[in-house]
Amino acid sequence: MGLFSKDIKSMDDLFVHTLQDIYYAECQIVKALPDMIEKAHDAELKQGFQSHLAETRTHVKRLEQVFQMHGKEPKGADCPAIDGILEEADDIAGEVEDKAVLDAALIAAAQAVEHYEITRYGSLVAWANHLGRSDCARVLQQNLDEEKAADKKLTTIAESKVNRRAA
Amino acid sequence: MGLFSKDIKSMDDLFVHTLQDIYYAECQIVKALPDMIEKAHDAELKQGFQSHLAETRTHVKRLEQVFQMHGKEPKGADCPAIDGILEEADDIAGEVEDKAVLDAALIAAAQAVEHYEITRYGSLVAWANHLGRSDCARVLQQNLDEEKAADKKLTTIAESKVNRRAA
Repeated sequence: MGLFSKDIKSMDDLFVHTLQDIYYAECQIVKALPDMIEKAHDAELKQGFQSHLAETRTHVKRLEQVFQMHGKEPKGADCPAIDGILEEADDIAGEVEDKAVLDAALIAAAQAVEHYEITRYGSLVAWANHLGRSDCARVLQQNLDEEKAADKKLTTIAESKVNRRAA
Repeated sequence: MGLFSKDIKSMDDLFVHTLQDIYYAECQIVKALPDMIEKAHDAELKQGFQSHLAETRTHVKRLEQVFQMHGKEPKGADCPAIDGILEEADDIAGEVEDKAVLDAALIAAAQAVEHYEITRYGSLVAWANHLGRSDCARVLQQNLDEEKAADKKLTTIAESKVNRRAA
C-alpha cells in the first residue's frame, strides 16, 4: 500500500483488501501445515491436520472464486498477523520435548490460526452482505463454517485425551 | 527461551509460558487501545473501546493474581502473534480515510485482537483444570467471558449501524 496516500477509500476497497489478507493467510497456512502434521504424535490429531490441509487448499480455491466473482485478480496482501501467529506456532513447537505436551501446544497453536480466520471471514461475510454481494457472502460462509468446525474438532481432541495425557 | 535446550518440559511449563504470552499481549493492548479510541468516530464504538481499556487493565491485574496463585513472578514472553495483529490494525487504520469505513476497519481489527485472546484463554482455562488448578481456571474464565462479551458487543455495533453506514 502507498506510503503517502490512503489507499482504502470505500467499503468495497476494505472488502478487497481483507480478501487479499485472508488469501495470503490461507496460502501461508498451506505451507505451515505439513510441519505441524509431521510434529503431531496423536494419530487422530495428525489425521485432523491432514484433513485440514486438504480443506485449506479448497479455501484458497474458494477465495480465488470470490475474487473472480468480484472482478478482481486473486492477489495476496501482507498480513503481519498470520505471520506472527505462525512464527509463534513454530517457536513453541521447537521448545517442547515431551510428545503429549507438544500435541497440546500444537492444538493451541492451530486454534490461534483458526480463530484468526474465523474473525476475518466473519467480517468478510458481513461486509459482502452489506455490499449487496450475498453471492460472495455464501462462498465465504462455507470457509467460515469449516474453520469453526475445525476449531471445535481440535477442542474435542484436546479435551477427550491430549490434555489429560499431557497434564 | 534458550536456543539449544528445549525449555518447555511439562504441561505446567506450557501453562506458565502461555500465561506469560497473554500477559505480554494484554499489556500491549493497554498501550494500543488509546490510539483506537482516538481514531473511532462512532460515539458508541469510542465508548466501547474506552470501557474495554478499563476491562483490559483489570485483565492484567487478574493475570498477575494467577501468576501469584501459581507461585510465579508476573512476567511477559515475546508474542509475535499479538505484535503482528496490532501492527496490522495500525497499518489498516492508517490506510482508510472515510470515517464510516475506518470505524468498520477498527471493529474488524479489534475483533482479531479479541479472537486471539479468546483462543489463548480457552487453552489456559482447559489446561489449568487438567493441572488441578480450578482456582486459577476460575480467574482466567472471568477474562475469557469478558473477551467474548467484548467481541459480541463489537459485532452488534458493526451490524446495527457501522457496516450499513460504511457500505
